[in-house]
Amino acid sequence: MLETAARLIREQGYEAASVQDIAAACGLTKAGLYYYIRSKEDLLLEIMSYGMDIFEERVLLPVLAIADPVERLKACMERNIHLVTEERSKEVTIILHEHETLIGAARQQINARKKRYVHFLEASFEEAMREGRIRRVEPRVAAFSFLGMVLWIYKWFRQDGKIPADRLAAEMQDLFFGGLEIAPAPARRGKPAGRARRARKAPGAKAGRPVPVPLPGAASRARRGMPAKLAGRGVAP
Amino acid sequence: MLETAARLIREQGYEAASVQDIAAACGLTKAGLYYYIRSKEDLLLEIMSYGMDIFEERVLLPVLAIADPVERLKACMERNIHLVTEERSKEVTIILHEHETLIGAARQQINARKKRYVHFLEASFEEAMREGRIRRVEPRVAAFSFLGMVLWIYKWFRQDGKIPADRLAAEMQDLFFGGLEIAPAPARRGKPAGRARRARKAPGAKAGRPVPVPLPGAASRARRGMPAKLAGRGVAP
Repeated sequence: MLETAARLIREQGYEAASVQDIAAACGLTKAGLYYYIRSKEDLLLEIMSYGMDIFEERVLLPVLAIADPVERLKACMERNIHLVTEERSKEVTIILHEHETLIGAARQQINARKKRYVHFLEASFEEAMREGRIRRVEPRVAAFSFLGMVLWIYKWFRQDGKIPADRLAAEMQDLFFGGLEIAPAPARRGKPAGRARRARKAPGAKAGRPVPVPLPGAASRARRGMPAKLAGRGVAP
Repeated sequence: MLETAARLIREQGYEAASVQDIAAACGLTKAGLYYYIRSKEDLLLEIMSYGMDIFEERVLLPVLAIADPVERLKACMERNIHLVTEERSKEVTIILHEHETLIGAARQQINARKKRYVHFLEASFEEAMREGRIRRVEPRVAAFSFLGMVLWIYKWFRQDGKIPADRLAAEMQDLFFGGLEIAPAPARRGKPAGRARRARKAPGAKAGRPVPVPLPGAASRARRGMPAKLAGRGVAP
């Protein structure tokens, strides 16, 4: 039901899509739809929460355990690009586009999850600088530049365009990190750049342990197997 | 009137803002507003055309004459960042956000102007590669990465945030071009990177002449002093 509603909202826009239309598309009466949701805004919150679940499961959680911060960021970029280029990721497009539609507590709830992603990126850039893996950047600008490159894709990417998603991901990784990574020291010449350094143990990093990244809500929810969209909220599934 | 309407549409969203509300905000009756516009969609087209005029006048036209492609792209990035970080650039935000709201001929008209910007960026990246000024990139991915970084700003930038627009522009230029520009040859060591090369004459470039960039409509309109939003359209100002 959330996916059908998401498709309609993405096609028509949130304001233009009526509750009547959404109900009909879901094969429900308007009253039937209101059995599941309290309001149209509640439906948007449900869709966005579902989109954030998908994002966290497919992009964020799988990369948290990567110890090297640059490899972690690169993997994150690749996964996020694949998510936004997929035709079926309608919920994700809605999180991106309707960023100012929600108000009050619902908006805070979604924004808190988005902010965790920004903080994860900032922390990873800071760590990469501390470990001498990238040149100095302002972590916040780096984080939002990363996000801008990756998330803007939903505005221009076409499935039938000349650049497939795989190539896009490789090109963007090279464009962003190719200029950030610090070249190996002169003594190391002969080894390929980047790869040579990657094997080096980061100063202060504990061997074999993933770097702790502050994402308590999503990570602990995932460990407990609890769907975030329903956790702590009194809404019928 | 366009600026007042733009403010309302940006605050409420295009679908949510009624023609009644827009007319009232402009100090007009609904009938009075319809004297100036044929429909709500026509109003959106007017606002977007006006936004594209502002963009072309403040970002694109001033940089077309810069002969060095990397300097041209850097200046373009700086100008575009200043435009999107300004509180008063409401029309520009609407071009960015309501990218799928217009339909038919109106949509094609705005999209053609947006595409000229993409093509300008692609052509400049291609030129920079030909002249050995930057390492090899896929021009389309570079153009949309540039756009993503710069245009995503409207989603997160706050006037009262910790990063002022000037610093943001400098950091993004460094982040994007710092890793793209080719370091000076070893014989040149001692001179600062980048600057040393910038003075070099580009192979094949004609001295003192700006590089021709395909932007016929906007450029020739600007030379003739004709406001693009009214050119060839039968709408009362």
